[in-house]
Amino acid sequence: MAIFNNKNKDERELGFGTKNYNKPVRFLNANGQINVHRAGLGIGNVDIYHWLITTSKTSLILVIILGYILINFVFACVYFLIGSQFFGGLDAQEPFQQFMNLFFFSAQTITTLGYGHIYPIGNAASIAAAVESLLGLLSFALATGVLYGRFSRPKAHLLYSKNLLISPYKNGKGIMFRIANRKQYELIESEASVTITLNNPETKRRDFLNLKLEITRINFLSLSWTIVHPLDEESPLFGLTKKELEERDAEFIILIKAINDTYSQTVYSRNSYKAEEIVENAKFKPLTPEADKRGRLRLTVTDIHHYDAVN
Amino acid sequence: MAIFNNKNKDERELGFGTKNYNKPVRFLNANGQINVHRAGLGIGNVDIYHWLITTSKTSLILVIILGYILINFVFACVYFLIGSQFFGGLDAQEPFQQFMNLFFFSAQTITTLGYGHIYPIGNAASIAAAVESLLGLLSFALATGVLYGRFSRPKAHLLYSKNLLISPYKNGKGIMFRIANRKQYELIESEASVTITLNNPETKRRDFLNLKLEITRINFLSLSWTIVHPLDEESPLFGLTKKELEERDAEFIILIKAINDTYSQTVYSRNSYKAEEIVENAKFKPLTPEADKRGRLRLTVTDIHHYDAVN
Amino acid sequence: MAIFNNKNKDERELGFGTKNYNKPVRFLNANGQINVHRAGLGIGNVDIYHWLITTSKTSLILVIILGYILINFVFACVYFLIGSQFFGGLDAQEPFQQFMNLFFFSAQTITTLGYGHIYPIGNAASIAAAVESLLGLLSFALATGVLYGRFSRPKAHLLYSKNLLISPYKNGKGIMFRIANRKQYELIESEASVTITLNNPETKRRDFLNLKLEITRINFLSLSWTIVHPLDEESPLFGLTKKELEERDAEFIILIKAINDTYSQTVYSRNSYKAEEIVENAKFKPLTPEADKRGRLRLTVTDIHHYDAVN
Amino acid sequence: MAIFNNKNKDERELGFGTKNYNKPVRFLNANGQINVHRAGLGIGNVDIYHWLITTSKTSLILVIILGYILINFVFACVYFLIGSQFFGGLDAQEPFQQFMNLFFFSAQTITTLGYGHIYPIGNAASIAAAVESLLGLLSFALATGVLYGRFSRPKAHLLYSKNLLISPYKNGKGIMFRIANRKQYELIESEASVTITLNNPETKRRDFLNLKLEITRINFLSLSWTIVHPLDEESPLFGLTKKELEERDAEFIILIKAINDTYSQTVYSRNSYKAEEIVENAKFKPLTPEADKRGRLRLTVTDIHHYDAVN
Repeated sequence: MAIFNNKNKDERELGFGTKNYNKPVRFLNANGQINVHRAGLGIGNVDIYHWLITTSKTSLILVIILGYILINFVFACVYFLIGSQFFGGLDAQEPFQQFMNLFFFSAQTITTLGYGHIYPIGNAASIAAAVESLLGLLSFALATGVLYGRFSRPKAHLLYSKNLLISPYKNGKGIMFRIANRKQYELIESEASVTITLNNPETKRRDFLNLKLEITRINFLSLSWTIVHPLDEESPLFGLTKKELEERDAEFIILIKAINDTYSQTVYSRNSYKAEEIVENAKFKPLTPEADKRGRLRLTVTDIHHYDAVN
Repeated sequence: MAIFNNKNKDERELGFGTKNYNKPVRFLNANGQINVHRAGLGIGNVDIYHWLITTSKTSLILVIILGYILINFVFACVYFLIGSQFFGGLDAQEPFQQFMNLFFFSAQTITTLGYGHIYPIGNAASIAAAVESLLGLLSFALATGVLYGRFSRPKAHLLYSKNLLISPYKNGKGIMFRIANRKQYELIESEASVTITLNNPETKRRDFLNLKLEITRINFLSLSWTIVHPLDEESPLFGLTKKELEERDAEFIILIKAINDTYSQTVYSRNSYKAEEIVENAKFKPLTPEADKRGRLRLTVTDIHHYDAVN
Repeated sequence: MAIFNNKNKDERELGFGTKNYNKPVRFLNANGQINVHRAGLGIGNVDIYHWLITTSKTSLILVIILGYILINFVFACVYFLIGSQFFGGLDAQEPFQQFMNLFFFSAQTITTLGYGHIYPIGNAASIAAAVESLLGLLSFALATGVLYGRFSRPKAHLLYSKNLLISPYKNGKGIMFRIANRKQYELIESEASVTITLNNPETKRRDFLNLKLEITRINFLSLSWTIVHPLDEESPLFGLTKKELEERDAEFIILIKAINDTYSQTVYSRNSYKAEEIVENAKFKPLTPEADKRGRLRLTVTDIHHYDAVN
Repeated sequence: MAIFNNKNKDERELGFGTKNYNKPVRFLNANGQINVHRAGLGIGNVDIYHWLITTSKTSLILVIILGYILINFVFACVYFLIGSQFFGGLDAQEPFQQFMNLFFFSAQTITTLGYGHIYPIGNAASIAAAVESLLGLLSFALATGVLYGRFSRPKAHLLYSKNLLISPYKNGKGIMFRIANRKQYELIESEASVTITLNNPETKRRDFLNLKLEITRINFLSLSWTIVHPLDEESPLFGLTKKELEERDAEFIILIKAINDTYSQTVYSRNSYKAEEIVENAKFKPLTPEADKRGRLRLTVTDIHHYDAVN
């Protein structure tokens, strides 16, 4: 399973190409999304389900509400064109109110509510209502799938320390950052991989280099995990300062892989730090999980951001 | 796939840190949950779906019933505020009974039952009912997802022997416990890993040490499995007594990984034994699965707890 | 991923124990189920969902129909006890017909059909109906989950040749059987493992021995696969006849692991052959897939059973 | 995880057998489906769910619409045979219109719409309606599962370059093609494997040979990936021309395995190139992803087909 294995040359290929873009680029957004837009594809390649699953809660609610209004509007028009005399129990005389009542009749039909105080008379109205109720059931089947898909989607909600520190480490220095689990489910068998990408002034291309980590894997991510790349002589960053990394438009690309214990799903988390986010001569404040009265360890997760200056 | 591989140093890192808590702690609860509370996170990090999936059956039923009453109460209030004259078929004169009837009308609307003996008149009442029926469908979609999520969640229901025994093993001794599958589905390709954590009087820190097992993997967990750590000279526990393990607040952390054959899902089970749960000079009673008339092997699973004293 | 790796001693442990049962036993049923009954567990360990997912189609349909009748009967009783005067539109005078109409009212309520020609009057009847419609929705949510769970369950429908042949192979002999995919979906990355279990007259225990295969893995199981264990000097079965294998109550346990391409799910198939099912001095008839006009290869899957006698 | 490992002989077995079909065959269709039809199996082996999940959107919609009409027609017949006098609110005198109204009543029943302006009277009609509404709920549960199954099915929508090029590569030549992701979700940890199958004039059989790739794995398939087999002396294709490959009915079988990041699912993509699709003396036009104003890399995916002639 050694997915982030340093030994294998193939593993070092990140798939971003080695072009030097001349201006600063960010390969991963701060939220871990890959910063690529794939164009030139027809409308048939838009994946609606993917959008419904990944869009924000607000967008989804808006889409549902607007879709509900729209479809009822369309069917209200259909019913209105068929003629209001084909609907029993429709008292209103005024066309606008008739339309509104047909709109409500449509809502009662598509949700399969069917009070029945308004009901279709004749074949055209009955067929339209039969179609609408089938459509309602199918839309609802789809909504069930989308809601389940959103909820059950594998998730690794990690909190990354705001900064990447260059800290004292053993007899030298190390680059380090911390992660913690933001949710109450457990992440087990976590693996980390850190790649640096920076411009190479000699070849005029971008290098992608895997950074060796002190520990690449832990069994439980129950407290926090400080991920350390030792800045020893084997490191490609040995001797480079923050300033030099900035000039070479360096970006640290972090990949975390873990198993979400509740769903036994493998989950992935990505993050990136630009050279600007490095803090030199600092070290993380020790976290102090305390055993409470019930023998439970209590950790304040947001403390992972805190660090102290060192000389 | 060697997840519980003894060779790799990285594997030995459990992710609990090495702090000595000075008072006795238990890293895993008796039910296998990790004994950590992550604080300091906002309300946005509460994962409702995770709670609905993992809470007890009783809590879930209560939440559904109370939610149903509450939402009908809220909509009954809305309908009451709109005015009972906007609801056809509402015979009651008395306000309380009107409210009750609107409550029942709400229940008939949110479930999309819609008898229709009570029905909305006018735009306000019709809009409220259209909203409620949509809400009903969505809540129900959510309930479908939650029920399916609960049922289909990967599960390894293992029974662990109540005690950890120090038994004769080969020419010396071994630490052993037994597990069996509590359910009728099959667990295949089971892997075990045992880690001991104990205070180190020299470093004043907690050590986490992987214990070497006689067999780390079996193809079928169809009968029971006695997991043995030989207490030979290579063992970090060689020569330690139960009393010494208690003084050092020792805890044995068990991880079992298997594949649930019905769902082809990888499942995890955790357990821990504190030093207090060790029984010295005892050995497990042999289990006696018997072939019944139909040639089927019959095993009484709860027999795995039984042991005999040895000299 | 080398799950069926011959090299690792741990892999050879099948988890059935090594007891000699003195009478013939079969560890796997002909349908691949493990022949073990786990007793001694309380009712709380019965997993209803597992039963609903794995039971036959006929049982499931019976359970649904009987459950539907039962629950409507129960609610009809409740409504009848409340009193038929609390139900509008109930014309019948005769108690039996009143009960039947309440039974139908219950069916219209639990399915959220709600015609409304019968409707509840007063609080008791309305509350009972509100409870029943909620129960209906939840049961239906559960049914959706069960149906989806059944359909989407990982499946490897393999056809195994009826017999295990001892055939000429290279300069000696080999034990071989054939498998083919019975369904139209593709199985990719198939792996096979064969273990023999037989009584050991010396130790009076059961041995479980992994048999080395000519090929343990193929990329596509699109035609058929003849799995061969060479009976060479390295084989534990070298020189044993069918008769001797029968006397030692030998059973060949087959494990096939593959990926169902439609769902990207890892699937498992098991089978076993008793020594009685061996045919000596026979070889499989070659299968003759033919390229049809459209260039498609056509294979008659059931031909895998056929063999010819050899001298 | 080395599924496409060149070292292991077993991996080279594709499962298509080694028969020479004498006429040109294609093992994989252009859309990646395996070109095999498995016959000789009874109707019980037809997997309806598999068909519903994998059929085209148009077929599915047709099946739903025709099924809806058919089932309503069947129940309309049942209701008609029971007799229209057993349905309240059925005004029509004319038998055809009565039948039509019963058809609409059926649609209102199976969708659990239940307006109630038509309603069953008496036991036979009520039982039929109760059965139909149960059937409606179950069909709908099934539809929910099918829609969810279709949407959530693991997918790798890759675009393959139309041609396979023989291009200059290092000091010699290489066979190369390009792939890109057609969708907006990310594919991570992509692995490639290329096998060539061609007739062997000496043995009169088909050879299946794994081709060594320059890089077998990349971390992100965010831009495009040019997969290269070096035509060096180690290659089985060294020195073969397009014409010779055509004469030997050569087919390149491509397997791509990746992880769909949105669902954390392992996905597979297959493709094949026949020798006819080779272009000699050509090289791919470099793709020019450009960083836009927002620092986002923009790639025109369909550019992967373009190539230039070389001397």
